[in-house]
Amino acid sequence: MERPAPIAWQIDETAAGAASYDLARQLYPICRSITGSGVRETLHLLARHIPLKMHEVPTGTQVFDWTVPREWNIRDAYIKDSSGRRVVDFRHSNLHVVGYSTPVRTMLSLGELKKHIFTLPNQPDLIPYRTSYYADFWGFCMAHNNLLELSDGEYEVMIDASLTDGSLTYGEYLHRGATEDEVLLSAHSCHPSLANDNCSGLALLAHFAKTLAPRKTRYSYRFLFAPGTIGAISWLARNESTVNRIKHGLVVSCVGDGGGPTYKKSRRGDALIDRAMTHVLRHASPKASILDFSPYGYDERQYCSPGFDLPVGLFQRSQFGTFPEYHTSADNLDFIRPEHLQESYKMLASTIDIIENDRNLVNLNPKCEPQLGRRGLYTAIGGDKDAPAKSMALLWVLNLSDGQHSLLDIAERAGIPFANIREAAELLSAHDLLAENASPQL
Amino acid sequence: MERPAPIAWQIDETAAGAASYDLARQLYPICRSITGSGVRETLHLLARHIPLKMHEVPTGTQVFDWTVPREWNIRDAYIKDSSGRRVVDFRHSNLHVVGYSTPVRTMLSLGELKKHIFTLPNQPDLIPYRTSYYADFWGFCMAHNNLLELSDGEYEVMIDASLTDGSLTYGEYLHRGATEDEVLLSAHSCHPSLANDNCSGLALLAHFAKTLAPRKTRYSYRFLFAPGTIGAISWLARNESTVNRIKHGLVVSCVGDGGGPTYKKSRRGDALIDRAMTHVLRHASPKASILDFSPYGYDERQYCSPGFDLPVGLFQRSQFGTFPEYHTSADNLDFIRPEHLQESYKMLASTIDIIENDRNLVNLNPKCEPQLGRRGLYTAIGGDKDAPAKSMALLWVLNLSDGQHSLLDIAERAGIPFANIREAAELLSAHDLLAENASPQL
Amino acid sequence: MERPAPIAWQIDETAAGAASYDLARQLYPICRSITGSGVRETLHLLARHIPLKMHEVPTGTQVFDWTVPREWNIRDAYIKDSSGRRVVDFRHSNLHVVGYSTPVRTMLSLGELKKHIFTLPNQPDLIPYRTSYYADFWGFCMAHNNLLELSDGEYEVMIDASLTDGSLTYGEYLHRGATEDEVLLSAHSCHPSLANDNCSGLALLAHFAKTLAPRKTRYSYRFLFAPGTIGAISWLARNESTVNRIKHGLVVSCVGDGGGPTYKKSRRGDALIDRAMTHVLRHASPKASILDFSPYGYDERQYCSPGFDLPVGLFQRSQFGTFPEYHTSADNLDFIRPEHLQESYKMLASTIDIIENDRNLVNLNPKCEPQLGRRGLYTAIGGDKDAPAKSMALLWVLNLSDGQHSLLDIAERAGIPFANIREAAELLSAHDLLAENASPQL
Repeated sequence: MERPAPIAWQIDETAAGAASYDLARQLYPICRSITGSGVRETLHLLARHIPLKMHEVPTGTQVFDWTVPREWNIRDAYIKDSSGRRVVDFRHSNLHVVGYSTPVRTMLSLGELKKHIFTLPNQPDLIPYRTSYYADFWGFCMAHNNLLELSDGEYEVMIDASLTDGSLTYGEYLHRGATEDEVLLSAHSCHPSLANDNCSGLALLAHFAKTLAPRKTRYSYRFLFAPGTIGAISWLARNESTVNRIKHGLVVSCVGDGGGPTYKKSRRGDALIDRAMTHVLRHASPKASILDFSPYGYDERQYCSPGFDLPVGLFQRSQFGTFPEYHTSADNLDFIRPEHLQESYKMLASTIDIIENDRNLVNLNPKCEPQLGRRGLYTAIGGDKDAPAKSMALLWVLNLSDGQHSLLDIAERAGIPFANIREAAELLSAHDLLAENASPQL
Repeated sequence: MERPAPIAWQIDETAAGAASYDLARQLYPICRSITGSGVRETLHLLARHIPLKMHEVPTGTQVFDWTVPREWNIRDAYIKDSSGRRVVDFRHSNLHVVGYSTPVRTMLSLGELKKHIFTLPNQPDLIPYRTSYYADFWGFCMAHNNLLELSDGEYEVMIDASLTDGSLTYGEYLHRGATEDEVLLSAHSCHPSLANDNCSGLALLAHFAKTLAPRKTRYSYRFLFAPGTIGAISWLARNESTVNRIKHGLVVSCVGDGGGPTYKKSRRGDALIDRAMTHVLRHASPKASILDFSPYGYDERQYCSPGFDLPVGLFQRSQFGTFPEYHTSADNLDFIRPEHLQESYKMLASTIDIIENDRNLVNLNPKCEPQLGRRGLYTAIGGDKDAPAKSMALLWVLNLSDGQHSLLDIAERAGIPFANIREAAELLSAHDLLAENASPQL
Repeated sequence: MERPAPIAWQIDETAAGAASYDLARQLYPICRSITGSGVRETLHLLARHIPLKMHEVPTGTQVFDWTVPREWNIRDAYIKDSSGRRVVDFRHSNLHVVGYSTPVRTMLSLGELKKHIFTLPNQPDLIPYRTSYYADFWGFCMAHNNLLELSDGEYEVMIDASLTDGSLTYGEYLHRGATEDEVLLSAHSCHPSLANDNCSGLALLAHFAKTLAPRKTRYSYRFLFAPGTIGAISWLARNESTVNRIKHGLVVSCVGDGGGPTYKKSRRGDALIDRAMTHVLRHASPKASILDFSPYGYDERQYCSPGFDLPVGLFQRSQFGTFPEYHTSADNLDFIRPEHLQESYKMLASTIDIIENDRNLVNLNPKCEPQLGRRGLYTAIGGDKDAPAKSMALLWVLNLSDGQHSLLDIAERAGIPFANIREAAELLSAHDLLAENASPQL
């Protein structure tokens, strides 16, 4: 029998917003893709805060239906007009180059060049974000208004990139708890200068891991920073035999803006993580949006594929694809804010508080209510219209602690935040009115 | 083990509206009742299109709690004023005579006559539809305004009808499919000149049967054209030992107007026919109305009686009893339209498409997503905000094809029309990514 | 096998409102508390109508986690100003004294006196209701405006009360039915001059018991008039071994005002009493409020504690704590009305009608509908648009009487009041179309 963790457990969210924003600020300029030096530089930045273990998966490795691609590295890229001026310049924004572009150096007419240019006519001042990982292609992205300014004539295009055998890199950190049961917290590390998607997720999870590190926990926590899709697939392929340790999990992205909050449920739909996150978000904001699982999104697509069906949901502020800054150059450091990261941190910590502390307790005095007033737990003057509210958490815990209801069950039915229910349970336990269930079903 | 039917199966609805309307137009003038020559004439008209088998059930036959009544035939009927003018004339509308009126020829004062006259004071220009099958009675129906115009005096009333031992007639056509499991499609054939109720249903089902005839199907399809209540009861009494073959069924009536569409669920409420029709109607129109079963309506009352409890629902456009034309002379050939019959045909065909093709399939590559791009099933350029929508049906089928979810389950959860899900499944099957479940639960 | 009760059973509610109001009017002036002569006087008034058995539980008796307190009796109390005028006078309202105040006779400055005075600043003309059962204290309640009128100076305070060993009193009446299975009807008897809370409940239940007494019933009915909390706890402690006889129950309070009606479900949430009361209230009023169980309220708190978990709900008009008169001097005889008590009586009687008569019946003619017209149960003229409504209850009972659905199941699904469904069942039984289920599951 495992020894139960202490019932009180909550991470301090103080200063988490500022620290996460500062880390996101450092991550933002790096040109990331699904492989290459940008990913490694990103992980080394995170490793300053947590003992991250780096993994390299060689090009050509078969991972389920996929093959790890060649490694892509880029040094410079531009489009020069006939006067030699860089009209598109990789040094100004790494979004200018289509991810995984093949190297090129040539002269083209404007008409030919346009076949390799992506713009957003409806958002004409923004640079779009595009990639072509698995089809050989080169291309540029630019503001539509800038494209309109280009005059006819010859242009020099240059992409100084390489596609060579190498490896795919991901980073992993395991915080060991009292048991081998794991909570997976995963953020994709493959997007270049997009602040919310996903410098915010990388930074928030790294800071969360840092604050978690010195604490004793019931679960072990696995933090995974890997490129989207192929990274998660690689990790699943390499850990297929132990993924059954994962009891709860979250994919974290776009957590720095002021929208949402949004939670997309796991494929199971009724996993504890689904209930915990729903509970936390509903109490955090009347704008909270709880979405059913769908097979499009981030790496929950892989974790929730039918062969794994892990209880992993997606936590975001604004939902991906729904905000105009999404996948454009407007997803920059002005779009995310320390206070939003702080709120996101608090929601994450409150969810983990539930995961750690949910349990079935037993009322030791189940026939009629115990006399709370005698124990100083209840207002002495009867008839007061307002007094009862103060005692509701105590009454709910007593009434439903029959061994069949967990603290989260009680919080849900009472409509009271889990933390208040947990505190009431601690108070009642201290007065010997409540005890651990002899045969917990956790 | 039965051999699975081809996964693609859909009836061509082209020209169904015009053909059905033309048939309804031919059926409309005939004076039908629950027995008699009008019913036989009706069935012979249908038999020009499908090899209908006629059945005659003799007067006096005991069918459960009922007895087949005498056969009613009518040749002429009128009310003449003192000048000899026909003020009510059966030759103008067969609605003028109460169905199953006993023969009569007499002179009456207006006051006495009124005891035998039905009108609709709130719809004063319309002739109502009335019957008296099981109580000896004679009567006329007429427009209220015409009644008001009648002056005092003596009237001659004449109904040249006969009530004699004979038989009740119904028609049946069985399209044989790969299995003996049956789909029952039933329309009542007893109403006189009411175009929507139910020339429309008779015509639509006859045309559907005609287009189905040359096709290979998984199920056998039983088309039943019988008088309401006593006809369905007679059929059930004569087929009691084999009704367990009926796996799905629909009663079809009032399918020529532009209202609804309406589906009333079977008594079971969650039969496949209920889910299929609900799915089709919800996608067909935002005005779709899905009603829970109730024991009043058409012959689903008999099919869904507790001793049978067959999975048979009721498909209509406007619900019976809710449109002002219902059971009046305004339910005429102007009230129904070829385009509405065409829409109804399409809804019926889409429902049958589900019944035929719903099945549980298995993703052969269940761990992580298969690489669709490599197979040309996925857009190559990542980051595009719109591309995902095109691939959602593929992703849903892959994610939920775990042997536990049928294609209809998937369509319901995805909110995508069944036909699109079926097509995605066919595409994935063609790429060897999907297969029949080894042990289907159909 | 128990012999089934007669299917028809309904209490006559005529004059119930006037009789209940008259009884409440007599109860109103008495100064009640959780013990003492006021409670005994109250019970003796009720005993004029029903053979109430009095129980005395001695001070100091241990009842689960509680101890029966000393008995409190009060004769007089006042606050006199320096001129000797009673500025607060117990003889005007027994709400003026905090319940269970310790005796006191002393002189105090206004400042010192205020520490013992309760008012309602937001309802400045009303006297609040306060108690201090388990903490030694004395105090007065008064209108806030009257407090503001008091000038500085010395005041004489006097409470002529006693707190001595004695007993807690409750009254019980058992109406014996065909079985030992019980319905518990409970009202708290501890509040002083508060008309709705709970003279109304005491009076309504006493009158209901009186009208029930001469009737044959299926269940036995236990009426309990006991002080809130400690009274219910005492009763449960003394009857612990037989509470499993209680199959259904209601706590009744605040049933004389015109609000609601309100029903708070038992902890189980789906007990028959929950379904019956929900059904009755929904049909009684579009304003009906059906609340989920919560562990705050009246004595359902004790009956629904996890060690008992009895199927006992709370029936009220306005919910406690939600009307401005609640626990103030405005809850007086003007606040309750005979017509509201009459309505409450009818809802209670309709609920008991369900409890008594709900049962599973079997359609003896389950294959197709029986021919109702032949038996005079159905209109003879077909085609009438309105006739069906009259027959719907018959059709619903026939369709769902398959041994799996009780009459309440049918009433719920049909959306028809239970009494109409019961009457339809009686009619069908009289025509041998319906019978008791051979193996009822009640």
